[in-house]
Amino acid sequence: MSTSCRLADLDSRTFERRLRSNPLVCVPVGALEAHGPHLPLGADQIQAEATAVALAERIGGLVAPTIPYGSAPSARRFPGTVSLSLSQLEAYTEGVLSELARSGVRRFLILSGHGERGHMAALREAASHVMGAHPDVRMVVLCDYEFVYELRGKESPATDGHAGLLETSRVLAIAPETVGAERPSVEHHRSPFLPGPPTEYEWPESVIGDTRPASAELGRRVQEHVLTRLEETVRALLPA
Amino acid sequence: MSTSCRLADLDSRTFERRLRSNPLVCVPVGALEAHGPHLPLGADQIQAEATAVALAERIGGLVAPTIPYGSAPSARRFPGTVSLSLSQLEAYTEGVLSELARSGVRRFLILSGHGERGHMAALREAASHVMGAHPDVRMVVLCDYEFVYELRGKESPATDGHAGLLETSRVLAIAPETVGAERPSVEHHRSPFLPGPPTEYEWPESVIGDTRPASAELGRRVQEHVLTRLEETVRALLPA
Amino acid sequence: MSTSCRLADLDSRTFERRLRSNPLVCVPVGALEAHGPHLPLGADQIQAEATAVALAERIGGLVAPTIPYGSAPSARRFPGTVSLSLSQLEAYTEGVLSELARSGVRRFLILSGHGERGHMAALREAASHVMGAHPDVRMVVLCDYEFVYELRGKESPATDGHAGLLETSRVLAIAPETVGAERPSVEHHRSPFLPGPPTEYEWPESVIGDTRPASAELGRRVQEHVLTRLEETVRALLPA
Amino acid sequence: MSTSCRLADLDSRTFERRLRSNPLVCVPVGALEAHGPHLPLGADQIQAEATAVALAERIGGLVAPTIPYGSAPSARRFPGTVSLSLSQLEAYTEGVLSELARSGVRRFLILSGHGERGHMAALREAASHVMGAHPDVRMVVLCDYEFVYELRGKESPATDGHAGLLETSRVLAIAPETVGAERPSVEHHRSPFLPGPPTEYEWPESVIGDTRPASAELGRRVQEHVLTRLEETVRALLPA
Amino acid sequence: MSTSCRLADLDSRTFERRLRSNPLVCVPVGALEAHGPHLPLGADQIQAEATAVALAERIGGLVAPTIPYGSAPSARRFPGTVSLSLSQLEAYTEGVLSELARSGVRRFLILSGHGERGHMAALREAASHVMGAHPDVRMVVLCDYEFVYELRGKESPATDGHAGLLETSRVLAIAPETVGAERPSVEHHRSPFLPGPPTEYEWPESVIGDTRPASAELGRRVQEHVLTRLEETVRALLPA
Amino acid sequence: MSTSCRLADLDSRTFERRLRSNPLVCVPVGALEAHGPHLPLGADQIQAEATAVALAERIGGLVAPTIPYGSAPSARRFPGTVSLSLSQLEAYTEGVLSELARSGVRRFLILSGHGERGHMAALREAASHVMGAHPDVRMVVLCDYEFVYELRGKESPATDGHAGLLETSRVLAIAPETVGAERPSVEHHRSPFLPGPPTEYEWPESVIGDTRPASAELGRRVQEHVLTRLEETVRALLPA
Repeated sequence: MSTSCRLADLDSRTFERRLRSNPLVCVPVGALEAHGPHLPLGADQIQAEATAVALAERIGGLVAPTIPYGSAPSARRFPGTVSLSLSQLEAYTEGVLSELARSGVRRFLILSGHGERGHMAALREAASHVMGAHPDVRMVVLCDYEFVYELRGKESPATDGHAGLLETSRVLAIAPETVGAERPSVEHHRSPFLPGPPTEYEWPESVIGDTRPASAELGRRVQEHVLTRLEETVRALLPA
Repeated sequence: MSTSCRLADLDSRTFERRLRSNPLVCVPVGALEAHGPHLPLGADQIQAEATAVALAERIGGLVAPTIPYGSAPSARRFPGTVSLSLSQLEAYTEGVLSELARSGVRRFLILSGHGERGHMAALREAASHVMGAHPDVRMVVLCDYEFVYELRGKESPATDGHAGLLETSRVLAIAPETVGAERPSVEHHRSPFLPGPPTEYEWPESVIGDTRPASAELGRRVQEHVLTRLEETVRALLPA
Repeated sequence: MSTSCRLADLDSRTFERRLRSNPLVCVPVGALEAHGPHLPLGADQIQAEATAVALAERIGGLVAPTIPYGSAPSARRFPGTVSLSLSQLEAYTEGVLSELARSGVRRFLILSGHGERGHMAALREAASHVMGAHPDVRMVVLCDYEFVYELRGKESPATDGHAGLLETSRVLAIAPETVGAERPSVEHHRSPFLPGPPTEYEWPESVIGDTRPASAELGRRVQEHVLTRLEETVRALLPA
Repeated sequence: MSTSCRLADLDSRTFERRLRSNPLVCVPVGALEAHGPHLPLGADQIQAEATAVALAERIGGLVAPTIPYGSAPSARRFPGTVSLSLSQLEAYTEGVLSELARSGVRRFLILSGHGERGHMAALREAASHVMGAHPDVRMVVLCDYEFVYELRGKESPATDGHAGLLETSRVLAIAPETVGAERPSVEHHRSPFLPGPPTEYEWPESVIGDTRPASAELGRRVQEHVLTRLEETVRALLPA
Repeated sequence: MSTSCRLADLDSRTFERRLRSNPLVCVPVGALEAHGPHLPLGADQIQAEATAVALAERIGGLVAPTIPYGSAPSARRFPGTVSLSLSQLEAYTEGVLSELARSGVRRFLILSGHGERGHMAALREAASHVMGAHPDVRMVVLCDYEFVYELRGKESPATDGHAGLLETSRVLAIAPETVGAERPSVEHHRSPFLPGPPTEYEWPESVIGDTRPASAELGRRVQEHVLTRLEETVRALLPA
Repeated sequence: MSTSCRLADLDSRTFERRLRSNPLVCVPVGALEAHGPHLPLGADQIQAEATAVALAERIGGLVAPTIPYGSAPSARRFPGTVSLSLSQLEAYTEGVLSELARSGVRRFLILSGHGERGHMAALREAASHVMGAHPDVRMVVLCDYEFVYELRGKESPATDGHAGLLETSRVLAIAPETVGAERPSVEHHRSPFLPGPPTEYEWPESVIGDTRPASAELGRRVQEHVLTRLEETVRALLPA
């Protein structure tokens, strides 16, 4: 009988047994999205999945397969970005959550490594629909960057952002083999009120911030902070 | 600059460069689906992904993140099975393929580890729509079990099937740590003409076949056959 | 009071009475699709409808109006082929089955004269959804070519297919006035792994097989086999 | 080479040739709907199809397979009525018209035997979308009861309606074998401003009018009027 | 505590209290649509809203915010016309009605100032779906021009229509500041059987009729007639 | 010729002429949503519309009819709240924007008085789709509370929110007749990570903040700030 926390590694009966001892299932969600010349396209997926596994090691529960593609219009101009429509993301996620609920899951952490507004709205909408059909299900939907960015102004400049100092450091801590040698420093001049992707002038590279001081050391502090905050959040909002 | 074949591990510029040298991208597709008391729920995802990576090592090309959930109505009665509607699967897949095509991908291998008819039909429909919008894109859509089952009557009884001798052996070869100790032997009495999941009488366990003779040795022969046939197929149908 | 087996010929009250004496309704499904230079575009509709009526004469039950258009991407290149999207076919069929179930029908035979994978998957998906909403409804979904092709290797070469020897003979037996004088012999070189329609080189004419030996005599044997197998199937799977 | 006017009876090449000599295709549309204790559920389909064939005999052109199920909420309370949602009907019809346009059809008569407002609106919407995509296509969408009811106040009381004197007579002329012996006389008290089906009090039987004077003789006059008006309409609105 | 009849002006608790004393809510629906060179694009919204408020003053009840955009294909050629698809209008309206029903509304008057067939069909379809889910809800769906046109042949020529004598007069009575100085006289030659917008030849200006005799005086008579008929209709069909 | 800035008040030709002199159209968007015991359900619609008109008086341009219903899940528990699904809101908005763009509008300000994340995401998605189809169209999508809340910590406590001090003051300035006598003071304890509406414990009343110091005087300062910031934003982002 597998002791893996990954739902995909468990057989059907073991899944059922594990669910009885801990009703929590974390569904990581990523996006395939340009993250500068130095971070991998799958950075969001990599971070969300690693964080979900680390959390399961702390508090138990299972990690479902990651939903790997999301909505990422801001970086759509850069090669390799896949940006789904909100309805495509919502429908797929709703199917997944609804089937897991049918299979007996009653506590969900939908943990996205990507935090664009539309992307998060689609995940929340899917979660709401499934909760409407299953009144005894509880769900938390969040992007782990909600916690990462609590460190802005402390561990980074206040203007740090996408693929910036904190994220570069975190990926260095989690998956150093995917990080390239460049350390870009980029400003972002796109108004948040304009829909659609920025122009080349507004955002020359898919980075916000100065990544030069990035280090695995800082990344480990960031990740420890994220895990602490996640643990608190899950214990408070998803009691068994 | 990463030498990984996984698209998620590459930065945006490296992706663009790699695409110019080899235009092939493989999109593995799985399903989260009961596979008896001995194989993992993610067996289809695990096999498709491992096969895609092994193929990329042989012929180059990139492996996109796996679409992990699919349509699996036959095993829906068993805990842990997630079975999406065809429209949910089709819309998500169409979004992914369409965005990859927009990003410059011109040769797609959609490689599913799961082969139910509706699931494959949804993938083919998504592929057709994207090809309709991109006349210069070529796509191959197949389930690797098309090749595995060429060995039925040779390496296994002719009646071997889902989570049976060949599949158990193949997972033993690819991901032995996920395989449990039981070796079920199960018959399947569900008419193919009945939609919806079988009853407990018709299919008491989510297995078709006698898995007792399974071995990693046999699994390696199966996998070698699959890779040989896949390589032939891609070379013939997806010329650069 | 009409004795017709066609639901469309019965008034509302007679329909209700007939349903009480035999709960079976057959819904034929066709496709408008090129069938070579010699068979009619409506061949699938013609065969399904004639077979449904002949079956009703044997075992009773009613025949609903035929759903005449389906999904037929393979022959889409040939004039006169109508190929709907899977979602268009599924939604319409689901509406029809759902309304018939609301009207009291509890045993459905969805009998398609067309058997492409996506087409059948859409019919099965529609049937599954309606069964999900009506737990006491039973449905069989099949293409009569499942039974016709049991005769391949016996009454025809093993490679016979669409608009080939068996189909030409069957239409000669059922609707000879619609069959033209040509008897094409055509090979099909399209990989089943490529979505979308074949090229002219891969499939020069919408026929698979050598139709020269076709005869109404053979067609009658084919049709007798189909009816026998259908009767068995319905008696076994759709008990009153 | 078939001389049938039915598109389903023609092979692909003959279809192409016939289209060149006369670009008109009529698509009959029906509904499966209760028509009192004396007329068949398929009355709308039967009349539309017979009228389309008779028109084709007068002015040439082809008759496509009938779309047999429509939207019929008013009679939904009576057994055997199938009432699709507007979106189900619209999507299917749009698929059919769009594919016929792709195959080269440039003049469409969508001839419905059923005339409820939502049903006609769905057909018009489908037609509009296809015309939007094919600027050289012309379409006429009408219910033949637009012409039948021009005779109200002349050949029938002004209040005659669904399954009433004119319709009973017309079906007696077209398909007498489907007409039962009863001749109901029914009033309809449902406000046109209430959506959904009438109550039993508002409409005790799915008939509007007094059918006792019905005769095949009257039916032939009705049908002659319909054909004359249809011919005029098509010649004026769908010039080759 | 507001005494306004407009739902939007009431706070949540006052709304609840007012609903208990009178369960009727009127939802006005408009269209943004060209109405000749003299009437405003919002004429339908303006009339429906003013009529709903005047009715509420007579019989109580609340007026919900107006749904301002609808389906208006006939006038689509004229600048400023917004014509939604039927499914866009239906989905939005269904959402609004369904939420109001959830909030406790049990009597609905959906009062459209625009009467095109598809537009009304979409409103009726939305209403039917919501009534299907709420068996104790009653709804009336109508266009006030059903009543205005009862005066054709009396207060206007029988051929008067869109933006014609009656409508011009009515807007002069209701919102004179929006009416320009021109008084067009226009004939309409578009067959009702052609989907899509008329050509310039068929309808040179978005008016049907001779508006020269228009007067606020006539408009007041029209409006009084509409209100009388509406009051009768609501009292008869939507009893508390 | 009307000098109104409201698009609904203009005739078709005047609309065209006005668009040539100033290409900007503002589309206000509201929500029907509980705003405590003192503010009206239509507060968001009222503020957005008044602000759009005031802006047009400063910089010209037209104000389209307000889209009055939106997505408001947080306050869904309170009577009178209408919360549409994201897809219902997105589809309707996309239809409106797309038709206005077809009519020649090239500069859009979508000005929402409601700012929930999903609601804004649906508006942005609709805008993105229309911009994808009209490359020469520019759009700004924003909630005026982006600017109102710039005054938190200055004109109000930092924790002020929905229906709180700033909003109460602003409605007192804009539409005092709709404001009731109560001045609630409410805390909100709902985690932003929980989808769906708060419980009664988490949010006893649909207010966030202490409204007791509210005044029309403060409201006028707030509104002046909003208009100044809006004018800047439109001049910078939507140059003619």
